Amino acid sequence: MIKAAVLGATGYAGAELVRLLSSHPDVEMTYLASHSYAGKKFSDIYPGLRSVVDIVLSEDDINAAADAADVVFLALPAGLAAKTVTAGILAKTKIIDLGADFRLHDKNVYEQWYKKEHNAEDLLKEAVYGLPEIHRKDIAGKRLVANPGCYTTCSILTLYPLVKNNLIDVDMIVIDAASGTTGAGRGEKVTSLFCEVDESIKAYGVTDHRHTPEIEQELSQAAGHPLLVQFTPHLVPMNRGILATCYAKLKDGVEEIDVEKAYSMYEGEKFIRLVPTPPETRYVKGSNTVDIGYRIDPRTRNIVAMGALDNLVKGAAGQAVQNMNILFSLDEAEGLSVSSASTY
Amino acid sequence: MIKAAVLGATGYAGAELVRLLSSHPDVEMTYLASHSYAGKKFSDIYPGLRSVVDIVLSEDDINAAADAADVVFLALPAGLAAKTVTAGILAKTKIIDLGADFRLHDKNVYEQWYKKEHNAEDLLKEAVYGLPEIHRKDIAGKRLVANPGCYTTCSILTLYPLVKNNLIDVDMIVIDAASGTTGAGRGEKVTSLFCEVDESIKAYGVTDHRHTPEIEQELSQAAGHPLLVQFTPHLVPMNRGILATCYAKLKDGVEEIDVEKAYSMYEGEKFIRLVPTPPETRYVKGSNTVDIGYRIDPRTRNIVAMGALDNLVKGAAGQAVQNMNILFSLDEAEGLSVSSASTY
Amino acid sequence: MIKAAVLGATGYAGAELVRLLSSHPDVEMTYLASHSYAGKKFSDIYPGLRSVVDIVLSEDDINAAADAADVVFLALPAGLAAKTVTAGILAKTKIIDLGADFRLHDKNVYEQWYKKEHNAEDLLKEAVYGLPEIHRKDIAGKRLVANPGCYTTCSILTLYPLVKNNLIDVDMIVIDAASGTTGAGRGEKVTSLFCEVDESIKAYGVTDHRHTPEIEQELSQAAGHPLLVQFTPHLVPMNRGILATCYAKLKDGVEEIDVEKAYSMYEGEKFIRLVPTPPETRYVKGSNTVDIGYRIDPRTRNIVAMGALDNLVKGAAGQAVQNMNILFSLDEAEGLSVSSASTY
Amino acid sequence: MIKAAVLGATGYAGAELVRLLSSHPDVEMTYLASHSYAGKKFSDIYPGLRSVVDIVLSEDDINAAADAADVVFLALPAGLAAKTVTAGILAKTKIIDLGADFRLHDKNVYEQWYKKEHNAEDLLKEAVYGLPEIHRKDIAGKRLVANPGCYTTCSILTLYPLVKNNLIDVDMIVIDAASGTTGAGRGEKVTSLFCEVDESIKAYGVTDHRHTPEIEQELSQAAGHPLLVQFTPHLVPMNRGILATCYAKLKDGVEEIDVEKAYSMYEGEKFIRLVPTPPETRYVKGSNTVDIGYRIDPRTRNIVAMGALDNLVKGAAGQAVQNMNILFSLDEAEGLSVSSASTY
Repeated sequence: MIKAAVLGATGYAGAELVRLLSSHPDVEMTYLASHSYAGKKFSDIYPGLRSVVDIVLSEDDINAAADAADVVFLALPAGLAAKTVTAGILAKTKIIDLGADFRLHDKNVYEQWYKKEHNAEDLLKEAVYGLPEIHRKDIAGKRLVANPGCYTTCSILTLYPLVKNNLIDVDMIVIDAASGTTGAGRGEKVTSLFCEVDESIKAYGVTDHRHTPEIEQELSQAAGHPLLVQFTPHLVPMNRGILATCYAKLKDGVEEIDVEKAYSMYEGEKFIRLVPTPPETRYVKGSNTVDIGYRIDPRTRNIVAMGALDNLVKGAAGQAVQNMNILFSLDEAEGLSVSSASTY
Repeated sequence: MIKAAVLGATGYAGAELVRLLSSHPDVEMTYLASHSYAGKKFSDIYPGLRSVVDIVLSEDDINAAADAADVVFLALPAGLAAKTVTAGILAKTKIIDLGADFRLHDKNVYEQWYKKEHNAEDLLKEAVYGLPEIHRKDIAGKRLVANPGCYTTCSILTLYPLVKNNLIDVDMIVIDAASGTTGAGRGEKVTSLFCEVDESIKAYGVTDHRHTPEIEQELSQAAGHPLLVQFTPHLVPMNRGILATCYAKLKDGVEEIDVEKAYSMYEGEKFIRLVPTPPETRYVKGSNTVDIGYRIDPRTRNIVAMGALDNLVKGAAGQAVQNMNILFSLDEAEGLSVSSASTY
Repeated sequence: MIKAAVLGATGYAGAELVRLLSSHPDVEMTYLASHSYAGKKFSDIYPGLRSVVDIVLSEDDINAAADAADVVFLALPAGLAAKTVTAGILAKTKIIDLGADFRLHDKNVYEQWYKKEHNAEDLLKEAVYGLPEIHRKDIAGKRLVANPGCYTTCSILTLYPLVKNNLIDVDMIVIDAASGTTGAGRGEKVTSLFCEVDESIKAYGVTDHRHTPEIEQELSQAAGHPLLVQFTPHLVPMNRGILATCYAKLKDGVEEIDVEKAYSMYEGEKFIRLVPTPPETRYVKGSNTVDIGYRIDPRTRNIVAMGALDNLVKGAAGQAVQNMNILFSLDEAEGLSVSSASTY
Repeated sequence: MIKAAVLGATGYAGAELVRLLSSHPDVEMTYLASHSYAGKKFSDIYPGLRSVVDIVLSEDDINAAADAADVVFLALPAGLAAKTVTAGILAKTKIIDLGADFRLHDKNVYEQWYKKEHNAEDLLKEAVYGLPEIHRKDIAGKRLVANPGCYTTCSILTLYPLVKNNLIDVDMIVIDAASGTTGAGRGEKVTSLFCEVDESIKAYGVTDHRHTPEIEQELSQAAGHPLLVQFTPHLVPMNRGILATCYAKLKDGVEEIDVEKAYSMYEGEKFIRLVPTPPETRYVKGSNTVDIGYRIDPRTRNIVAMGALDNLVKGAAGQAVQNMNILFSLDEAEGLSVSSASTY
């Protein structure tokens, strides 16, 4: 049994991770921590897991976690992971960080977008960007995995085949995305209140959302040269789910068959389904699956490529489990679901 | 492996059953049928199960199903099961009927509430009311299980200990219940449209809802004498979940300790959790669990007992799987979840 | 033009009041205050009213408000009104208090349910309980109006004809109510976050909700003797609306015609509609209307009486405007809507 | 008093129109028709208007309507208006068509996108495209107004200043829009059921939505040359509201000040508010207002322009009333609201 610890266990991503780990056949949770609820049982905060996860929460303490576990998952606010993860910690345990601190390879880009100093530059080269469908081989054997963001996982996987195969104009790539409200976290903010979110839609983070450089880093690497994207997220009155609707102009001469061939790179991927109709977030709810579909507009020569995933699963906790499975040489799908967790 | 068939596989309860069976370790689905979608793949109708359940749907045909399977689940409109199940069918396979046709022991009561003739009176005595927590012993060894209704499962389990132990006045038992909209089925009705349900609540079936006699049958049996209940369901703008808030006056001399003792009958029940705060439907979503809590009002001497379950799982498909597990001598919890299927 | 002031203008009830007053033909708002947002424009907090109400918010100051206005509306947390309203204030302006401080005639009952001292006992007898359909005549000419609570307005108006005419057994009156989430206020609480409310229903305040004594006060007065009610509110994933489903046993000999006659007391009431089918909250959204319907169960001899209103309008701001109209001898319906503010 | 008739009065747009007309000070409704509900009272279908609009519904009959009214509003399925409106009808009454039949000036474009023959080509030149903020002068004096579509009104008004002033590259204009579910109409379709829409988002009509040519017609006219747009609508789990997030690259040399100047064309427009933060659909709910905001991305040189409106009001019924006000020389805002119809 793999001993697992979770810091930040009562945030939305952390709690979903606890839920997934609780039914993972090869995992035993030995340490759960929460700054806000230390001393309480996990199931007091998440009564859906009453009688299933009644572990008492500790204060977030990465040293105690590292001593107690073979793998420590961090689901902490930006900046905290970079402050607490050290070479010493990594000598004792493996780290899967659900936050942003180790995702960007370039410290300067991090500091520019996150408006804070990065405290662990030397660890950046130890970290791997944990998107298995792209970096599977690099993940195995690593001790520090930067688990990708939710919007980024969805956007990158949707656009990657087009960029990698040089099928689109990179001058203007538009990613118009929408997320359920768990994406806003469990903080007590007026803007997250039921009555402020219900029955409305809005864009936010227009031109400056922090997932932008992460998408650009990965797609630039695929392209072989730097590129920019126009990323706009929207908040939707639902709990879970991300839909990324992506737009770009096909290069001259590119035909539907080229696009089809590009996406065939995902054949055999257990958690990617190419779908003939526009993907809907409900069909991936609770699963680790990304549904991807596209349409080419013969009038405009644009391609509209759409990806859907569950922001808390493939966009956070599920992908973290997938990474753990790789780190520990388990079946990559162990403890994860391909089908939506509920029909409705 | 148990070979299973589902008739009515594309209704909301039928589809949830297919989803549960698809991950049940001891079941192989050999026959799925749908009157509306025969000839299509199940996953064309429920794309959340794409690559998981791609079986082609047959026309509803109980004979073909009986030939193909060790157990046939019926998720059909009222009246159809009674028309098609016969002694011959039962000789070939076991039947778990998610509909109402075999739930009421008294044909006259059925005909009065359902306003239609009952076509299989002789089979009524072969049938068992499949509420495992009450009738577990009677279920094992049967060939025809009448799977209880959603409101009824919730109401009966919440009130049973009080009635059985003679703790409440049966002159006025009020059950005020609320259900998510999957309870209204997948029929194309104006009243089920998103915009007609969203942002509103209403009562329906006031004084004449068909789950009333089912609750009365079971509670009367518990009481040892006939009793009536005042049952009022409400429609709530959410997909899943039933909450039953039940009211009755405690008999003179009954104390909190007596109530506590009565509910202790559920100790050891895997799928019933006694909870200290009012149960919330979200905590049982996707699970086979019923959360039950109560408060005694010292001012009025009333008890307010509340039960919550997922109408598609413990209120339909999950309980059907639980019954199947009993029929085939498996662990009763096989393929079912105690914890909610998602944190949100 | 009536000069109006609102304290607590940015809470949900306060803001709805501002919205209603902004289109009232005989009102000019001269003073809006908000402890949280003093110094900002009202429309910065409620951008739906941009270009309509751009008044800069003051700090809550009842003296300044009294100097600036003919009527001061208070939409403040419990206890604040009793602390700040004085005989001196009442000499300068009229007060309509949307809070609970002056609703209960008996200081002891207030202190018992609200767990705090009442600071203005002498003003209690100056106050009138502002439920126009019951106390219209007492309201005119008063200077201090205690605007009723949302659940209470709905519950009292639904049950009043039955109690007043001695048609029901008062031994066990059950009021099972449900409210939209604006009822929980705009405070930054985890339990009010979108993801905690969405897709779930729960009871709260079971046996001890503060609207209980208010309902009991008014119905006891109608009955001519003290009575108790069993009141249980529920939280529903919608913004607005209250539904009260009320249960009681009809007295021996009472017939449907007696009930019909009792409810005919509401004939001519502009804001009460007797409806033949169970009322739905969507039909009164944005209006000052209460829809009331009932069914008698011949099997149990119980009556199920249901009332629906918009908690922010007839349950708060709209009723406050109605009271203001009475105080200033305007048409009682001025600035208020009978029809729902939107079809959807 | 203007006598008004509505055909298709019980669809979502038709009913909202009836609601608006019911409180319009200069209008008397003399004829309401509905194919589905002829013979019933309007308020039987829309009980929110009980005691307000109890008119009995006729069969849709444009001749009877024309005889009964000074203006006839058509809220009918595509194709019906072109079949029934004639020169003879227009001699008797004015027509405001909420459908698509007279919006496209070019019959061929209509037939290509709507896949049906156009039966009234000769009337196309009599019709005016009823977008007051652009075509106000052309509307006055006309007898046949083609009321614009919901997505189109939002998209055109958001992009018009940029196109008109030649500020953006028209090679790639992306309009990513989202709509509440009233946009799907009141038809009894599985895809419009509550449980199919709730908790999910999807794109639809990708590359072939019928509002595309309408947007292109108006923006081409503004540009002075033909242009194409990439329009993708999404379905969102809410009743009302449209948000259009529009993307284009600024031409070389264009500065923020040029953009600001372009949008200043809307100064003085009562129903357009330029807003400093991303618009949210809740702030225009129930109002006839369009909120428009934009952000220029200095990194990419793209502009992200966003517009929000209520699809049933400014996107349908409200704009129809605005057009009627123009036709009859009333104040353009009569009977319409600038502020959202409710705070929540």
